Amino acid sequence: MTVRVGVIGVGMIGQDHIRRLKHVIAGVEVVALTDVDPDRAAAVAAQYGVSTVHATGQEVISDPAVDAVVVCSWGPTHEEYVLASIAAGKPVFCEKPLAETPEACERMVAAEVAAGRRLVQVGFMRRFDRAYRALKEVVDAGSIGAPLIMHCVHRNPTAPGYFRTESSITDAAVHEFDMLRWLLGEEIVATTVLTPRRNRYGGDLQDPIILVLELESGAIADVEISMNIRYGYDIQGTVVGEEGTAALGDQDAVVVRLAGGTTAPVPADWRERFIRAYDVEFQEWIDALAGPRGPTGPSTWDGYAAAVVANTTLEAFRTGTKTSVKLADMPDLYVRKEGTS
Amino acid sequence: MTVRVGVIGVGMIGQDHIRRLKHVIAGVEVVALTDVDPDRAAAVAAQYGVSTVHATGQEVISDPAVDAVVVCSWGPTHEEYVLASIAAGKPVFCEKPLAETPEACERMVAAEVAAGRRLVQVGFMRRFDRAYRALKEVVDAGSIGAPLIMHCVHRNPTAPGYFRTESSITDAAVHEFDMLRWLLGEEIVATTVLTPRRNRYGGDLQDPIILVLELESGAIADVEISMNIRYGYDIQGTVVGEEGTAALGDQDAVVVRLAGGTTAPVPADWRERFIRAYDVEFQEWIDALAGPRGPTGPSTWDGYAAAVVANTTLEAFRTGTKTSVKLADMPDLYVRKEGTS
Amino acid sequence: MTVRVGVIGVGMIGQDHIRRLKHVIAGVEVVALTDVDPDRAAAVAAQYGVSTVHATGQEVISDPAVDAVVVCSWGPTHEEYVLASIAAGKPVFCEKPLAETPEACERMVAAEVAAGRRLVQVGFMRRFDRAYRALKEVVDAGSIGAPLIMHCVHRNPTAPGYFRTESSITDAAVHEFDMLRWLLGEEIVATTVLTPRRNRYGGDLQDPIILVLELESGAIADVEISMNIRYGYDIQGTVVGEEGTAALGDQDAVVVRLAGGTTAPVPADWRERFIRAYDVEFQEWIDALAGPRGPTGPSTWDGYAAAVVANTTLEAFRTGTKTSVKLADMPDLYVRKEGTS
Amino acid sequence: MTVRVGVIGVGMIGQDHIRRLKHVIAGVEVVALTDVDPDRAAAVAAQYGVSTVHATGQEVISDPAVDAVVVCSWGPTHEEYVLASIAAGKPVFCEKPLAETPEACERMVAAEVAAGRRLVQVGFMRRFDRAYRALKEVVDAGSIGAPLIMHCVHRNPTAPGYFRTESSITDAAVHEFDMLRWLLGEEIVATTVLTPRRNRYGGDLQDPIILVLELESGAIADVEISMNIRYGYDIQGTVVGEEGTAALGDQDAVVVRLAGGTTAPVPADWRERFIRAYDVEFQEWIDALAGPRGPTGPSTWDGYAAAVVANTTLEAFRTGTKTSVKLADMPDLYVRKEGTS
Repeated sequence: MTVRVGVIGVGMIGQDHIRRLKHVIAGVEVVALTDVDPDRAAAVAAQYGVSTVHATGQEVISDPAVDAVVVCSWGPTHEEYVLASIAAGKPVFCEKPLAETPEACERMVAAEVAAGRRLVQVGFMRRFDRAYRALKEVVDAGSIGAPLIMHCVHRNPTAPGYFRTESSITDAAVHEFDMLRWLLGEEIVATTVLTPRRNRYGGDLQDPIILVLELESGAIADVEISMNIRYGYDIQGTVVGEEGTAALGDQDAVVVRLAGGTTAPVPADWRERFIRAYDVEFQEWIDALAGPRGPTGPSTWDGYAAAVVANTTLEAFRTGTKTSVKLADMPDLYVRKEGTS
Repeated sequence: MTVRVGVIGVGMIGQDHIRRLKHVIAGVEVVALTDVDPDRAAAVAAQYGVSTVHATGQEVISDPAVDAVVVCSWGPTHEEYVLASIAAGKPVFCEKPLAETPEACERMVAAEVAAGRRLVQVGFMRRFDRAYRALKEVVDAGSIGAPLIMHCVHRNPTAPGYFRTESSITDAAVHEFDMLRWLLGEEIVATTVLTPRRNRYGGDLQDPIILVLELESGAIADVEISMNIRYGYDIQGTVVGEEGTAALGDQDAVVVRLAGGTTAPVPADWRERFIRAYDVEFQEWIDALAGPRGPTGPSTWDGYAAAVVANTTLEAFRTGTKTSVKLADMPDLYVRKEGTS
Repeated sequence: MTVRVGVIGVGMIGQDHIRRLKHVIAGVEVVALTDVDPDRAAAVAAQYGVSTVHATGQEVISDPAVDAVVVCSWGPTHEEYVLASIAAGKPVFCEKPLAETPEACERMVAAEVAAGRRLVQVGFMRRFDRAYRALKEVVDAGSIGAPLIMHCVHRNPTAPGYFRTESSITDAAVHEFDMLRWLLGEEIVATTVLTPRRNRYGGDLQDPIILVLELESGAIADVEISMNIRYGYDIQGTVVGEEGTAALGDQDAVVVRLAGGTTAPVPADWRERFIRAYDVEFQEWIDALAGPRGPTGPSTWDGYAAAVVANTTLEAFRTGTKTSVKLADMPDLYVRKEGTS
Repeated sequence: MTVRVGVIGVGMIGQDHIRRLKHVIAGVEVVALTDVDPDRAAAVAAQYGVSTVHATGQEVISDPAVDAVVVCSWGPTHEEYVLASIAAGKPVFCEKPLAETPEACERMVAAEVAAGRRLVQVGFMRRFDRAYRALKEVVDAGSIGAPLIMHCVHRNPTAPGYFRTESSITDAAVHEFDMLRWLLGEEIVATTVLTPRRNRYGGDLQDPIILVLELESGAIADVEISMNIRYGYDIQGTVVGEEGTAALGDQDAVVVRLAGGTTAPVPADWRERFIRAYDVEFQEWIDALAGPRGPTGPSTWDGYAAAVVANTTLEAFRTGTKTSVKLADMPDLYVRKEGTS
């Protein structure tokens, strides 16, 4: 069965996903798209041979030729399109963040619970990364004992122009929020923000920051977010257990000895580091839709939880104190660990 | 454009390729298949929803619904199916070895040259591996200077039951023969076989062996082939240039510290190590067929050259001496480096 | 010139230092020793051919045949012996901690300042470790930019029997206190203790702990202290600068591929990891004494600063809050960076 | 007991050894020296406070104040001084090569056998290197099974001015000859020289070369000798066993992430790589002399065997063929594995 997808929003990310769905992923066809910019919509449709251009996201969702929806539009519009997709009973893949506020996420959770089945998947792609999966496998196998600490590093060479300090939490660290919940299989219960000496390349930003996240079990994660470190894009993660540690490896394709040193390249950006994770993310989503299972990736609940942790961390940053994370009760729909496994 | 593929031979490799074409590769449909075992053909067709089962490979090739052919049948049948595909003007992907003898390969070269365009691609998947490509990029960039030596290691945990010592050359080292020609962009001109102390796990096999291969430029490659080394599947390659070296990296997904050591897992077998290379190999083949270019991967000439080097190495093994490799003149069709880049 | 050394305290550490002075270090002779246990003193003197056994530390110090004193006795006695050595105008090497309290350290500082020259060196051996020195060289060269963060890890396989949670600060983290001051060349100004989920192998201990240390420049160091992690002794350190990072390397003597993995051994304990640092520490001390310079290693001031940071961290642990570190003004004697370079 | 040493030859190496004996090694005193250049002898004696300068090596050897002799003079003079030391019944440390010809070595063997005890140690310092010792420990433990192959790499950034192609065998590869015999505990029985494409930085030299060495057990070692590879000094060694491999690790003191790459420094030259091995070599020699054992390092026999292998390899290089190595029968004096353990 070929899954027919409609895409809402064809900016940079949307176009990349259309390219992926068309040229990389099996079992899928992009049959419709829309964008706030009609010229861009037309141009992208022409480039990728997408037959239908709709005037609005709502039309994409209600198009009977569309089996499933991919939402890549501006963050504030996510709620509308996800709710409409749920209402239409259509699976929807929504890029992160699921919504701008926990409240918006709660409305999506309520709608999906009312619908009685999982329809939403959120674009947290690290869960599909080979290295994170290998790490989770080791942790789950129990050989290093119970996880006590996780050290995380998240470095970018240069912050985008629109970046504010808060973006380090909502745009960057949000990946660690979801990853930690998934990898360790427990909720984050408190959050603190440390503010080291600033990087002169960061201008007015408080960059870097270090987050201290406490989990239900008492495990603590520290997360360095550096947005202007120049040398490359670098994602590290080490789980410290009772008897050992497990860490993401450096996946060096090539190692060069030259001019006094042994050197392995560091990825230039997140695209290079996670391109395969995006591919796997979509292939597994399409495969799940084509079968009887429905989506198994990050759920509405996961999107909600990440939003709450991000919001609480913003508050912790503003107040300079440790702040407790308060989540609603998890609806039964998400209980069978769909969100965390 | 969706490329419609017919598969000849649905044993282990054929089935894996059908799975790949159906569930991993974009822009392709498997529309027909055949096998010497009609029951197996029917079962595989049912499993993967392939609509047409033909009685013979010839019927697959002449089926007007088939745009391109994938040959995964028994080695001795390759020549017949590749020649028939060329005759039908259809692109054909042929698993290695292209043929059992250099002479058979020469007939395919002649047929393709007569056809006036490249139709054949041979299944040397290392050219599509991320690490080998990164290595070639460094070598081609010239930063380590001219290549003088390449050290290669090719280790398997356990030789298959059918393995003879000669298989170490024709089944295992054949990958290095092609890789060296592609990576260094030059032909192999002489070959010698060294026979170290035998591994007791290898039974009657002369295992390991070391091949010494000389290239046109005078560069020398040494290739260790170990077929019973127990610990895992391990492919290594280091190019020694005038000013530096470049080597395949270990692509460690996870690194564990436990019980007195820091450990990274070694792949269990070639599937684990090269699974992505197979995917890329087929995706690029399909993409090339869907566009105006035609196949750009390993050519009939590459299959021929590998066969000649393998044959000469068998002779060198039997005689215990260095033996010259004699290739025919390369037809113009292959001159523009299609074979080696 | 041969430096004639007298050793006060010949327990485990004292005996190891006598062995080192006798069999590893050039230009030195152990001429006298003492111990609270006269039998042990006699036995050690016999074993290492030390001619004179004194009844008290004071006698060792005042022995005219003794050029320099090594203090390896019980912590509470350090003040007495160091003050007496200063009074006698003799160089003294004192094992860490310099004293149990900041006040005792202050009295030593005052005495040395009154003496008008550096006579005291404290046994912080990491400053003599090849890896830490290479790290400091990179940081000082400025190529990674200003240091913003340092991530430190200090793991032991099993806590000694006498260990209390406070010992993780006073016995273990004290090495990081000194190392950070030396490596970054600035004082620690505030300290916080985080208490993750406990390791079941740690019994009643709060183990692990994470220290958050702020430095004058605003740089932040996080230090994981794990005392029961089973797998080995593991010291890590990564300085995060504005443009790059520099980390202690793993100094793997041997790498083994076996049974599905690539493994390098982790040191079993601090002796294995730092044995060379101890050797270098003593050789440089003896060389400095034999020349016109006097001691150049960790000074009384460094011992004092480490004691203050440790004390403040104990307070931070008890109160659960971030606590400011208050140091006295540094006397001119130590200003020329002797303590930090 | 302090061992009183006399040094014959105080060129670059001799001076370095005097510095080492004086400032690094415990239990030794340099009491006499000589050199063909009397001015140099006087200057070095003044610099290091050596009291006696003799006119000839013979005088050094017969000086009753000299307990043991270190020979660092020009290669052709080694035989004379070693024989004289044996005649005088004094332990002698002789820098490699023990002698220029196998015949000269045989005369030393004969003299030592006649003396009835080991007096000679040859300066093959790799046996004292931490990494090689760790490698030997793994191999000897048997966990990787019987050794079948050893891959060796020996690279220098720039060949010294006096270098001829033959020097790659007699000056460079000679270290591998001894190391292989020691590490694998067996003799080399045949040798072949391969001559790859030449490095343009090597001028008229055949550089690099690859040696193929066969051992008694049938194990094969391949040794790449590159003398002009620019990037640094690089010694590698991997033993391939029946079930696994063991390799010298890269002992990276520091790892830097900067400008798109993760980099660890490569040693600049053999001094940097092996400085500790020289220290250990001399300390163990002095310790052995001070005790009842006598020298335990590389013996006269080891010097002889290395000379024979080097000579045979020169012949193999000239003739371009595999050449058998013929050793005399090992005298009982060396049988108890002193040479190979």
